[in-house]
Amino acid sequence: MAYELHYWPTIQGRGEFVRLALEAAGAPYIDIARGDEADKQGVPALMRALADKRERHLPFAPPFLKDGDYVIGQTAAILQYLAPTLKLVGRNEQARTWSLQVQLTIADMVDEAHDAHHPVSSSLYYEDQKPEALRRASFFCRERMPKFMQWFERILVQNPAGPRHLVAGRLSYPDLSLFQLVEGLRYAFPKASERVLSRTPHVRELQARVAALPRVAAYLASERRIPFNQQGLFRHYPELDDA
Amino acid sequence: MAYELHYWPTIQGRGEFVRLALEAAGAPYIDIARGDEADKQGVPALMRALADKRERHLPFAPPFLKDGDYVIGQTAAILQYLAPTLKLVGRNEQARTWSLQVQLTIADMVDEAHDAHHPVSSSLYYEDQKPEALRRASFFCRERMPKFMQWFERILVQNPAGPRHLVAGRLSYPDLSLFQLVEGLRYAFPKASERVLSRTPHVRELQARVAALPRVAAYLASERRIPFNQQGLFRHYPELDDA
Repeated sequence: MAYELHYWPTIQGRGEFVRLALEAAGAPYIDIARGDEADKQGVPALMRALADKRERHLPFAPPFLKDGDYVIGQTAAILQYLAPTLKLVGRNEQARTWSLQVQLTIADMVDEAHDAHHPVSSSLYYEDQKPEALRRASFFCRERMPKFMQWFERILVQNPAGPRHLVAGRLSYPDLSLFQLVEGLRYAFPKASERVLSRTPHVRELQARVAALPRVAAYLASERRIPFNQQGLFRHYPELDDA
Repeated sequence: MAYELHYWPTIQGRGEFVRLALEAAGAPYIDIARGDEADKQGVPALMRALADKRERHLPFAPPFLKDGDYVIGQTAAILQYLAPTLKLVGRNEQARTWSLQVQLTIADMVDEAHDAHHPVSSSLYYEDQKPEALRRASFFCRERMPKFMQWFERILVQNPAGPRHLVAGRLSYPDLSLFQLVEGLRYAFPKASERVLSRTPHVRELQARVAALPRVAAYLASERRIPFNQQGLFRHYPELDDA
């Protein structure tokens, strides 16, 4: 049975980390909110699931996944759950735990990339928090982005199985997520991210390698891949890049 | 062998979620950075571990835990790792996954509580980002705090095993973490949190029940419990409470 992914239909957002894992594994899934309301899909289906008074594992927010009757939310928890079945994590407990730890650090950086353009509130427009965004984006580009990216570089270099992967010697879901993070930073902060990536060569190479994986390349070229835009996590406001 | 917890020695911070789990389980641990440099402890020991060029699981930031030679960072990953041994999670995979999901949502709220007083950068003083903090704290108190707390209330009410616990019918680490979150909110935002808690009775009862657990009560009364202060995650600036 196909997985059901529930996420906002017009942005990559946090749902994209789950889409990439499903696509890279060739797993069947339905992107529910992008479907037709006549087929009991679309955004109303997502909203109904979030309001379900009988659901014992009620998610706080999208993305969430349905595997039959089993519902699971929080991006990192979804990936942790899916990865053994999709063969996107090693079999032993240490590989699973390290994958989770790397994924949570990616998630922390994603949150900070979002808050660079929305430092006051997600319920305000960017234009209503622009002075605050200019200040926060400056710290993000100068301090936080280098700090995070240098850590990714170091853990690649310190991987006993070699610097081609984040976890052991094979593709795992944190590799896919780091690819997506770098893609987003390049879209949102082309100048600042280029400067940082010039000093993190193994991160840059991993990103290129993931982009060239046949299933990932096919997905990126398809209509299933929503382009980056100004409603998502990663937004390109030139004034915030290297502010 | 005792666990080694590595975290900043003068604040509760994110390390407190790990301390509470270890204390509630009666597990032996050494709070490394609070120890004596003469015993190879203290903050220098923590800094050395963060700079270890041979560590395959290098943590990004404190807190991190050492279990013998095995190192693990990221609060939610540490708890996920410790919980089966500490008997702070159910045995089946569904209980572990739901616990992780709830913990990650607690972590999201903790991040937002921190950013209410530091919306621009953690490397600036509060006094240098006070106008931005006033705006962000207002949204935090009016929108985000009710939204998160109402979700905790709902998952308690919708727990098929009853509203006394977040996961199944027994104490698990998310219960301890929700206790700590409510404690922190009461310290930082006494007015706003009281208003929200008056409408989330099961959350309030869970908090009181955890505080009364013998091992937790003994810990809270001990010198091992660092008092809340103005350097931690939760800070009490009266002007931000219900701003």
